[in-house]
Amino acid sequence: MPRCIDWQDGAVVLLDQTALPHKEQWLRISTVDELVAAIRRLAVRGAPALGVAGAFGVALAAAADGDVLDAVRRLRAARPTAVNLAWGVDRAVARLPGGAEAVLAEARAILEQEAASCRAIGVRGADLVARLTSPPDGRHRVLTHCNTGWLACGEWGTALGVVHELHDRGSLGTVYADETRPLLQGARLTAYELAQMQADYRLVVDSAGPTVIARGMVDVVIVGADRVAANGDVVNKIGTYPLALAAARAGVPFLVAAPESTIDAATGSGADVAIEDRAAEEVLTIGGTALTPEGAGAFNPAFDVTPHDLVTSIVTERRTIDPRSGRRGAQ
Amino acid sequence: MPRCIDWQDGAVVLLDQTALPHKEQWLRISTVDELVAAIRRLAVRGAPALGVAGAFGVALAAAADGDVLDAVRRLRAARPTAVNLAWGVDRAVARLPGGAEAVLAEARAILEQEAASCRAIGVRGADLVARLTSPPDGRHRVLTHCNTGWLACGEWGTALGVVHELHDRGSLGTVYADETRPLLQGARLTAYELAQMQADYRLVVDSAGPTVIARGMVDVVIVGADRVAANGDVVNKIGTYPLALAAARAGVPFLVAAPESTIDAATGSGADVAIEDRAAEEVLTIGGTALTPEGAGAFNPAFDVTPHDLVTSIVTERRTIDPRSGRRGAQ
Repeated sequence: MPRCIDWQDGAVVLLDQTALPHKEQWLRISTVDELVAAIRRLAVRGAPALGVAGAFGVALAAAADGDVLDAVRRLRAARPTAVNLAWGVDRAVARLPGGAEAVLAEARAILEQEAASCRAIGVRGADLVARLTSPPDGRHRVLTHCNTGWLACGEWGTALGVVHELHDRGSLGTVYADETRPLLQGARLTAYELAQMQADYRLVVDSAGPTVIARGMVDVVIVGADRVAANGDVVNKIGTYPLALAAARAGVPFLVAAPESTIDAATGSGADVAIEDRAAEEVLTIGGTALTPEGAGAFNPAFDVTPHDLVTSIVTERRTIDPRSGRRGAQ
Repeated sequence: MPRCIDWQDGAVVLLDQTALPHKEQWLRISTVDELVAAIRRLAVRGAPALGVAGAFGVALAAAADGDVLDAVRRLRAARPTAVNLAWGVDRAVARLPGGAEAVLAEARAILEQEAASCRAIGVRGADLVARLTSPPDGRHRVLTHCNTGWLACGEWGTALGVVHELHDRGSLGTVYADETRPLLQGARLTAYELAQMQADYRLVVDSAGPTVIARGMVDVVIVGADRVAANGDVVNKIGTYPLALAAARAGVPFLVAAPESTIDAATGSGADVAIEDRAAEEVLTIGGTALTPEGAGAFNPAFDVTPHDLVTSIVTERRTIDPRSGRRGAQ
């Protein structure tokens, strides 16, 4: 399984996600300035991968001459709303008293932990899919949304980690991947990962996902989560909610694959989560080309809320939660 | 109210929809060959508008030298799956024995009839919206999908005709328009019509429509229809079904505005309708630019089926149908 970010010979190496899917361009980054620029332009993205990037950034700063704490501030501010970035930076900063080697060891440990969590989610999720659905040919057909694979997580992935595991077991049928407007993470990144693993996959526009479910073309829907509230409401990439509505109506299991760190016990329900509105330009343009009349406005919420009664199970690295019954426990 | 197609001084004039929203380019077409080319490249589109175009094409052929029946064949074949095109051609052909003037009179009559039907749908639909919802400021906030305005219908429009009428009455609030991937009729054409009427509107990606509904941001959802089955199931542009699911859950009225000619009593339910799969390239590219890895596949259904239990009312030029109760009648 490849990793989208790692440390080699004193530098961070990462796959430039802005060049995907057309070019596989690995960047070798040896200064904090270069890394901050790479984070800003989304060359590396996805919550777990950003945590790893932040920690490696501190390792770069610790090994170089100069003002380490200023470098830390710039790293933390590269994407101010990405909580994992600051979290990764802070974990590495705590090791600064031990020297550059201790910081690097902590950064590597974060990468290994994220990978291990995703690996466990993949195995537990695939086990659950096998229990919940019984396709006649033993190959589970999956619908997924956005990008939740090794490009987002460092290694393996969450929802797409389950898909990877099903594929490794020889029990993966056709995967339908939503393109995921406005930023097309599905069309660009998930398609790239599925092509790499030689899965049988087909892209659909986001609004066709519910039809794929209604027409009986998939056995299970698997998505990730940006945050899970205490009552099991799931905040995830815009476009998740309509898939859950369609799955509930069709009786198709709707699974959420996410690490324990995503579960926010301090937030009662999805209604308590402030949903980030992003720039109108993401909707009004594609690849810099204006789609709409001059002066057009847009509403661009980054996430939606899937009420817990529509969620079959939430799979973490430790347990399987059924938000409808309130049952929580390892399986 | 403008018309997207008309007859002036011996020629068809039409607004080139492929140049919208960036350029308002009116074409003056005086030969059948030019008209066939314009239809093929979607310079004119939308079922009612295509019927008018076909009839005007026969008028061009009847007024010119040459093989009229060969011209008729080429017109009919310009878009073989567009039933309205053939229907308009055939109605005009029936008048050929009366001479070129009789053919032209029939074509003009078709244009007037389509406009009158849409006008009636707009008025009836706006009346229904006023009965069903009572926004505190008297301004009804609407979510719509695809393009169902005068660009599709010649004049007025169906679902967007209702929006036009609400606007003329001073009782239109913010309109949320789905961009409508893959061909972006919402972002390009509906946004153009809404900008022209100086409505307050905002574009959303298709997958955000259900969230707009769930968050209480609209009072009513209004869409058109490509076909309505005998039991009230609605076949319409892909992306209609998730809006109906979200509206039902939120208790928001879901209205379908469509002419009587759309109601297909010979088809029992949506399950009996063959859904057209369109080219994968529409999903895999935008404006000719590939979004996905080489070799990617796509599933591109043009329509989805909204089960009748999710439909509040179907408004035609003659009556209002409530598919859930089976009640049909003029109101």
